[in-house]
Amino acid sequence: MTEPAAFELFAFWRSSATFRVRVGLNLKGLAAHEHIVNLEAGEQRGEAFLKINPLGGIPALLVPGHAPITQSLAILEFIDEFQPSPPLLPADIHGRARVRSIAGMLAADTHPLVTPRVRKYLAGAAAFDDAAWRAWQIQWFSTGMLAVEQRLAAEVQTGLYCHGDTPTLADITLASIVAVMRVFKISVAGTRTIDGIVARCDAHEAFARAAPSRQQGAPA
Amino acid sequence: MTEPAAFELFAFWRSSATFRVRVGLNLKGLAAHEHIVNLEAGEQRGEAFLKINPLGGIPALLVPGHAPITQSLAILEFIDEFQPSPPLLPADIHGRARVRSIAGMLAADTHPLVTPRVRKYLAGAAAFDDAAWRAWQIQWFSTGMLAVEQRLAAEVQTGLYCHGDTPTLADITLASIVAVMRVFKISVAGTRTIDGIVARCDAHEAFARAAPSRQQGAPA
Repeated sequence: MTEPAAFELFAFWRSSATFRVRVGLNLKGLAAHEHIVNLEAGEQRGEAFLKINPLGGIPALLVPGHAPITQSLAILEFIDEFQPSPPLLPADIHGRARVRSIAGMLAADTHPLVTPRVRKYLAGAAAFDDAAWRAWQIQWFSTGMLAVEQRLAAEVQTGLYCHGDTPTLADITLASIVAVMRVFKISVAGTRTIDGIVARCDAHEAFARAAPSRQQGAPA
Repeated sequence: MTEPAAFELFAFWRSSATFRVRVGLNLKGLAAHEHIVNLEAGEQRGEAFLKINPLGGIPALLVPGHAPITQSLAILEFIDEFQPSPPLLPADIHGRARVRSIAGMLAADTHPLVTPRVRKYLAGAAAFDDAAWRAWQIQWFSTGMLAVEQRLAAEVQTGLYCHGDTPTLADITLASIVAVMRVFKISVAGTRTIDGIVARCDAHEAFARAAPSRQQGAPA
């Protein structure tokens, strides 16, 4: 018998945004019971899930007695306030701003462009075939990754991780983008600083356990 | 003679994300010197601005002695930590999560889809004409607004504003989306709760002063 989990997480194995929350929970030593929302079957647009998140996106975190929390960065900020140690953000306000800015470059200005609902619209309204969709994915993954690389390579706060020598929200987001790029076999060249940081994330148990390939429902 | 502003804000009159930062600064009684980045002339993709933000998006906030802060929500969180009163987030962690979640539904899952760089790509790769672009804008504005309406109408924490009776990050983001929808003459029906909240924002001096039509460079 395992103890009942306090948190419930609506999740899918390959979802980049769900990966972020899994890493955050792992870093904090928190557990969540997962409910699979099969993106490939369109379950995120089904009536049952739209009651959890009317925007039809995962992840969503249910905390008993409260409205569902959606949006991966909002969930991570919640987890960080719920269980402050180890921190997902630096202590100083300028460092916190830098970490949130880097995380936003990928979680807000990159990832929302390559989600299933966007693919569905472009397939219908613009007759995007697989090749056109792949070109679209590469366009936005490249734009986001190269912009982050430029900052990480130039800014003195970059350490073993995006900000100093311990993982933050920025590393969680960065690793989540790389995780989904791997699922879709997309790579971006010229990201030497990122590559080093992601290698350290890969070797970190909290990140490794969140890998898409290790989740329930992943292809064998 | 005005005193020199401590902050420098890279901005454009009609930018939804810049509106957010202007409201945040106004609510806190903080000033910023604005540098115009003309989105219509593509200045966000020019060499000079890419040194400030390699992702080529506004706003960016420069604080003397620190790396530029990009991403509107990261800037707002910074402003809130720099000058805590009046707060942009509730005091309790569940309320903070709800406010950040609503803000993210619009700032991360809606607005990045309708930015100039996306228009540029779709015009080139998918031959989107004005009508196709307008349909795209309506699709994502509607999806985001209706999802937020559903939450606001259903959740007990909604008050005169999105969360209780004072403006938060959620109202700032919501009003920013409506502000840019007005610029593009797009409206979404069936958003009664939002309409009431936005009317209160419109009547609030900190929001009114941030209106696109009142900024330098706006059409007469």
